[in-house]
Amino acid sequence: MATKVATKVATKKMVYFFGNGKAEGAGDMKNLLGGKGAGLAEMTNLGVPVPPGFTITTEVCTGFYANDKKWPEGLEEDVKTNLKRLEDALGARFGDPANPLLVSVRSGARVSMPGMMDTILNLGLNDTTVQGLIKKSNNPRFSYDSYRRFIQMYSDVVLGVEHAEFEHLLDARKKARKVQHDTELTAEDWKELVVQFKALVKEKTGKPFPETPWDQLKGAINAVFDSWNNARAIKYRKLNDIPGDWGTAVNVQAMVFGNMGDTSGTGVAFTRDPATGEKKFFGEYLINAQGEDVVAGIRTPQPISTLEQAMPLAFKQLEDIYRRLESHYKDMQDIEFTIQEGKLFMLQTRGGKRTAAAAVQIAVDMVKEGLIDKKTALMRVQPDQLDQLLHPMIDPKAKLQKIGKGLPASPGAAVGRVVFNADEAERWAERGEKVILVRTETSPEDIGGMDAAEGILTSRGGMTSHAAVVARGMGKCCVAGCGEVKVDEARKRFTVGDIVVKEGDWITLNGSTGEVILGQVKLIQPELSGDFSKIMEWADEVAVTGVRTNADTPHDAQVARDFGARGIGLCRTEHMFFAEDRIKAVREMILAKDVESRKKALAKIMPMQKGDFVEIFRVMDGLPVIIRLLDPPLHEFLPHEDEAIAELAKEMGVTPAEVKQKVESLKEMNPMMGHRGCRLGITFPEIYEMQARAIFEAAVEVAKAGVKVIPEVMIPLVILEKEFKVLKEMCVEVANEIIGKSSLKIDYLIGTMIEMPRAALIADKIAEEAEFFSFGTNDLTQLTLGFSRDDAGKFLPSYIERNILEKDPFQTLDQVGVGEMIKIGSERGRKTRPNLEIGICGEHGGDPASVEFCHNVGMDYVSCSPFRVPVARLAAAQAQIKNPRK
Amino acid sequence: MATKVATKVATKKMVYFFGNGKAEGAGDMKNLLGGKGAGLAEMTNLGVPVPPGFTITTEVCTGFYANDKKWPEGLEEDVKTNLKRLEDALGARFGDPANPLLVSVRSGARVSMPGMMDTILNLGLNDTTVQGLIKKSNNPRFSYDSYRRFIQMYSDVVLGVEHAEFEHLLDARKKARKVQHDTELTAEDWKELVVQFKALVKEKTGKPFPETPWDQLKGAINAVFDSWNNARAIKYRKLNDIPGDWGTAVNVQAMVFGNMGDTSGTGVAFTRDPATGEKKFFGEYLINAQGEDVVAGIRTPQPISTLEQAMPLAFKQLEDIYRRLESHYKDMQDIEFTIQEGKLFMLQTRGGKRTAAAAVQIAVDMVKEGLIDKKTALMRVQPDQLDQLLHPMIDPKAKLQKIGKGLPASPGAAVGRVVFNADEAERWAERGEKVILVRTETSPEDIGGMDAAEGILTSRGGMTSHAAVVARGMGKCCVAGCGEVKVDEARKRFTVGDIVVKEGDWITLNGSTGEVILGQVKLIQPELSGDFSKIMEWADEVAVTGVRTNADTPHDAQVARDFGARGIGLCRTEHMFFAEDRIKAVREMILAKDVESRKKALAKIMPMQKGDFVEIFRVMDGLPVIIRLLDPPLHEFLPHEDEAIAELAKEMGVTPAEVKQKVESLKEMNPMMGHRGCRLGITFPEIYEMQARAIFEAAVEVAKAGVKVIPEVMIPLVILEKEFKVLKEMCVEVANEIIGKSSLKIDYLIGTMIEMPRAALIADKIAEEAEFFSFGTNDLTQLTLGFSRDDAGKFLPSYIERNILEKDPFQTLDQVGVGEMIKIGSERGRKTRPNLEIGICGEHGGDPASVEFCHNVGMDYVSCSPFRVPVARLAAAQAQIKNPRK
Repeated sequence: MATKVATKVATKKMVYFFGNGKAEGAGDMKNLLGGKGAGLAEMTNLGVPVPPGFTITTEVCTGFYANDKKWPEGLEEDVKTNLKRLEDALGARFGDPANPLLVSVRSGARVSMPGMMDTILNLGLNDTTVQGLIKKSNNPRFSYDSYRRFIQMYSDVVLGVEHAEFEHLLDARKKARKVQHDTELTAEDWKELVVQFKALVKEKTGKPFPETPWDQLKGAINAVFDSWNNARAIKYRKLNDIPGDWGTAVNVQAMVFGNMGDTSGTGVAFTRDPATGEKKFFGEYLINAQGEDVVAGIRTPQPISTLEQAMPLAFKQLEDIYRRLESHYKDMQDIEFTIQEGKLFMLQTRGGKRTAAAAVQIAVDMVKEGLIDKKTALMRVQPDQLDQLLHPMIDPKAKLQKIGKGLPASPGAAVGRVVFNADEAERWAERGEKVILVRTETSPEDIGGMDAAEGILTSRGGMTSHAAVVARGMGKCCVAGCGEVKVDEARKRFTVGDIVVKEGDWITLNGSTGEVILGQVKLIQPELSGDFSKIMEWADEVAVTGVRTNADTPHDAQVARDFGARGIGLCRTEHMFFAEDRIKAVREMILAKDVESRKKALAKIMPMQKGDFVEIFRVMDGLPVIIRLLDPPLHEFLPHEDEAIAELAKEMGVTPAEVKQKVESLKEMNPMMGHRGCRLGITFPEIYEMQARAIFEAAVEVAKAGVKVIPEVMIPLVILEKEFKVLKEMCVEVANEIIGKSSLKIDYLIGTMIEMPRAALIADKIAEEAEFFSFGTNDLTQLTLGFSRDDAGKFLPSYIERNILEKDPFQTLDQVGVGEMIKIGSERGRKTRPNLEIGICGEHGGDPASVEFCHNVGMDYVSCSPFRVPVARLAAAQAQIKNPRK
Repeated sequence: MATKVATKVATKKMVYFFGNGKAEGAGDMKNLLGGKGAGLAEMTNLGVPVPPGFTITTEVCTGFYANDKKWPEGLEEDVKTNLKRLEDALGARFGDPANPLLVSVRSGARVSMPGMMDTILNLGLNDTTVQGLIKKSNNPRFSYDSYRRFIQMYSDVVLGVEHAEFEHLLDARKKARKVQHDTELTAEDWKELVVQFKALVKEKTGKPFPETPWDQLKGAINAVFDSWNNARAIKYRKLNDIPGDWGTAVNVQAMVFGNMGDTSGTGVAFTRDPATGEKKFFGEYLINAQGEDVVAGIRTPQPISTLEQAMPLAFKQLEDIYRRLESHYKDMQDIEFTIQEGKLFMLQTRGGKRTAAAAVQIAVDMVKEGLIDKKTALMRVQPDQLDQLLHPMIDPKAKLQKIGKGLPASPGAAVGRVVFNADEAERWAERGEKVILVRTETSPEDIGGMDAAEGILTSRGGMTSHAAVVARGMGKCCVAGCGEVKVDEARKRFTVGDIVVKEGDWITLNGSTGEVILGQVKLIQPELSGDFSKIMEWADEVAVTGVRTNADTPHDAQVARDFGARGIGLCRTEHMFFAEDRIKAVREMILAKDVESRKKALAKIMPMQKGDFVEIFRVMDGLPVIIRLLDPPLHEFLPHEDEAIAELAKEMGVTPAEVKQKVESLKEMNPMMGHRGCRLGITFPEIYEMQARAIFEAAVEVAKAGVKVIPEVMIPLVILEKEFKVLKEMCVEVANEIIGKSSLKIDYLIGTMIEMPRAALIADKIAEEAEFFSFGTNDLTQLTLGFSRDDAGKFLPSYIERNILEKDPFQTLDQVGVGEMIKIGSERGRKTRPNLEIGICGEHGGDPASVEFCHNVGMDYVSCSPFRVPVARLAAAQAQIKNPRK
């Protein structure tokens, strides 16, 4: 096997040279040469000045592993040949005491894996060649510093001597010399340290530090190969779905130095402003410095605009190059350059990272400039990034005193003074204070206070806790389940470790990351530019998968419609039940001892439900509205604390014992799989009947006022075709009676949620009656995986950390398992009813990867919370571009 | 449509005559003529004396419904033609005042639906023909009684006048005549009642009672058709999976009377003893009586043996006939006969119902007699019935004072004196008392008392509650979750409504039905005859699906092996954890603050676990043993009551608050989908490691002693291939280390339970590593249907009652939903690993219908509780006979 691979590799070209204005490789050879190698080749071919060098292909790396970590046959010869070409190109030689060739050795995979693998600079230095460098540079301090850096880097990466060991020696030196900074050390100091470093290597490895440049190079190349399989690279690959058999290329390139005096320098730049997207050359540089000095922040770099004055020739050349690179790559570039004694060298070019705002502006501008087409523009914006544009965010420059981290339950940021109960929150807000409501967990009674607050922080509860769900609906920042925060509501304070935060103290929340920050932090307000609308408009032109919203109130519906939602995919009727003026009637209904008294209580709720639907139908004029009939188990509506029970008993005119007994009797071991959803509709048909009546009376009322209403009634938790049939018949009877009386024509659909595995399996039978399916992927995930969302926190983090599970299946759809259920459900459903309307209404409807999946399985729409609507619209467009569907 | 059907029916023969020793139909025409009609035809053709008559086919019934409840074209003519043949055969005429023809009209579907549809006797009587009957019978009392019976029956069935209305008149008559029994009324009374009855019909229906025999007959035939779709028939069909479009036949047959004096009589008989199976003619008869008199129990029937003396000729003829029928049908027959004035008529023959013991003996005897082959014999025993043979049962003749009904948690019956705690149970048992342990629910501390008791009754908990599971394991009778029983443990009594049962009072439990009975009832002890072994032996010869057992203790394993189990399919290790001497160490392990202390506690448990495995391996010498690693969430092992927490804290040397906090922190919203199964193995690998060590050390120990040990380690709750891989590697490492040291060769398998939908979906990937699958259908049912077994009691009964769901999916496998998951899992698993060992270990493994399903999907074995093993063995054989598999 090993031999076979070696032979196979040997028949292919293993090393690609670049230099003297010509490269053997090209920009489209990323798979073979890695991103960096392909970029260097491409720039060389474009005539851009690049220090010459060569790239050992990724196939060699793969061969190296297949061959028991030995070099494939012929590689040594090829490397030597190319080294010779490099020497010839530069007129310098490896190990030449007079004019030594120094090289960098860098990894470079197909895709950028920043910081994951190793780099070695200044290779070729030893006690002899350092003298040559001194002569050439006329700078002993620079030369010895370069030498000790090389020893340090090489020993760490190749020989396995820890970086810290060298730092100890360095610290001792500074102490002895009574100085603070490296810059204060002299050439003599560095020279002395080189001796000490080499002694350390001898002591730790039992062997002297390699003096021969060729040995150094071989070791470095092996180290780069090895680094492909170091722990952090493996983890990074798994997290980013990068196959382990891609391998890395190795780039060996002549060193250039930006720190050879005042005619040298180094810098990084972007071809457009990566923060705003503005079309202007943007970057910074340092005179007489190396790349790492820019990063280290010891000296303050200069804005790139000043380079024109400092080095007019180099600047002009740089300007020319960046324009060529951008128009060549048709994207904003992130470039690295070094100027050595007045001569410009480009070290890297790649697509530049950018903020959401910049991504949007650059994409739109480039379309205007004719550089790219609309589809390319759409692919240039990360859907998830759009979230930044819709919520206030924390100023990225602000210094933060982070004190805790909870779940990023509802995105955005909020600043306010801490209060510990909802009434307080309302009172403070009334007098103009900005407040953050902090609770152990919230309950329906807190709604007013949540509305009054800037943001909500809870110490308990998950991504679908009351606080999280309500906050997302309100588009309000929320950090939930922050366990480090110990809330003492009685004493009006919370503690995090030793920190005590009292009522009235300022805190800041980052709902997008879950961070809790002490004090008042500056926020940046969102600004929806015309470019944003443009991108959204293009997205809608392209997408075939529609986007609806999950909205329970007229307000949410309006927000979502403003964000471009094309209907409501899920209107949960139970949140309406929680409102303060209704919960009493709901509890009366639950405590009813017979059907008659239950009906009496329902009659009180009915006009309120109808009123909600009237408003929602008005807002969604012309668009479909899916209303889900009551879903949660009834015990969720009852109080559980003695005090609240006593109060309820008093209100209802029964004994606390009676209420308590009812609460007890409704208790469930596994409420998620209990008496809920259509099971309530079967056992208490009067509840669903009231809801159907409210829906269709509302529909008739608004239709009379000229609103185009398209109601879709959704029956939840179906697993048996008969459940659906019985309840559909009931709804149809109510609908026909009400619509019939009105002499209007109102089209409506009756459909179901597919959220239990059995429903997906018998979708063909359910579709005989059901006119639409909405995949409830929250529950479908719970049941397919057997993960209780409320409890998974006990083991899920450890699963993800150990990479047993790649991602939290409640955040991004488990495409293998839950996705398979969806495929089965969709295929079987459409087999019976080819035009079956299919959508998704779980939290996944706003996750771009999940939207792509939904597109690929042929869904008609996804539905997500209002603030995720733009994200989903863009994701739907990208999905269509990647995998066009009719 | 209606016309089309009518035409279609018209082209087929609609009426089949039988009489004069020849029938147009035959015994194999059950589908067309119904069971009764086919039987009458067959007997007629055999030359057995049968009153002549004719059968209207089931197709006519179907046509009747398709034709808007009208008679198909030509039917009236056909009925009239056959009526004429009947009149000719008997020399009597419909409506003839001198010699009237009287007929019975009876329904008869393909399969017997006892009591579901209607029968009318004595049809043809009216004020004129009754005089003819008086003349013929010379018995006015008999004649008027027959007449009033006809009016009563006909009015109820055809005219919709309630039976009770007639009974009121009858009661009034008896009161007026100051008599108690019908038999005391005279001919004059009956005559008078006929007048009153007819007046009542006129009053209630507004029309006179039909006098014309032809009108009477038409009405009766329509009523039989109608009765096919009455509510109780529909329900019966649904419960017994009988399609609604089969329809019923109508049998019109000449009346014969067993009540025409001392040379008349009627009786029922079985060709063999239906209670014991003994080969002897068995039955009873009444002189001068009608069939309903035998049933009503007013007079005591005579044993059939005395008929020889009473009517020697008829008896000889009857003996001859029953022998012919049995050898013709090759099965024990249940026959009905009437002797009219010395002449014998057979009215029915059909396969006789029988006890399990009789079924076994008859089947074996008939093979010996050469009447049937072994496969037919196997099909003659209902697997579910075998349960009767394995447990004591309540004497079917005993009069029972039933006071409550709980779940039939563990079959059999038990009699004992009530005690309310486990210690008491042990003390009473020691002094020789038989006791029934009554608890609200049981817990691990009650094990000793449960073992000492004859049976267990709990007021709370389901089919898999602690009491139920432990009792089934012990093969001990248990009624669980009997909510009507209010247990007051403090006052040592329980109440059911007004009934108070105190400590020491006798009660009887029927664990097969769930009934709780007051007082001491006679039990019948099981007797496993040689015939039973014979049937089991034949079953094993035929079956290809093996039967293993779910057994957690050496005792259970031994019982199961004695019952013929061919291995252990599920050995739950957690039940071992509950034993009194271990729970302390288990709790110490759970409360451990770090890995080290957890390992210390595990080291204490390890020798005990190993000891269990040693014993189980010894018992199962030569057979495979699947051991499941720890499955339940840890909180199940901790106490929840304050007192017990305090005690535990004291034992562990920590504060009660600490214990309480741990208990709280382990609490779960939906424990079924929580931190359990292999999720524990991933987060606390030391637990599974200890268990693997115990298993393989035990294996090596017994193997050294010459036992053939075949361990199969089962990892529960897997949903991700990596979960399995990581844990398998750990087990293999432990196994190889231990086996390696021993210099023995021990083959073992590492496999998994498929109990989460996702596991079934990715079975192909799991099978890359897993060497066997065991479908855990308890959990798979919960998750596929989203039914929490602990909570489903709130709606499941109403689902089944309303026929939304046909059967409790926890008792018999939901073949459509869960079955589909099993099919997917099996197919995908075997795609990767064709020889994958596949079995089932849910409660369904002992349910015959589910066993058949498992056979059909190609499982290697089913596994069930020890006492269900014979049931499963027979079910597996029958499955193979019905659907032969290689």
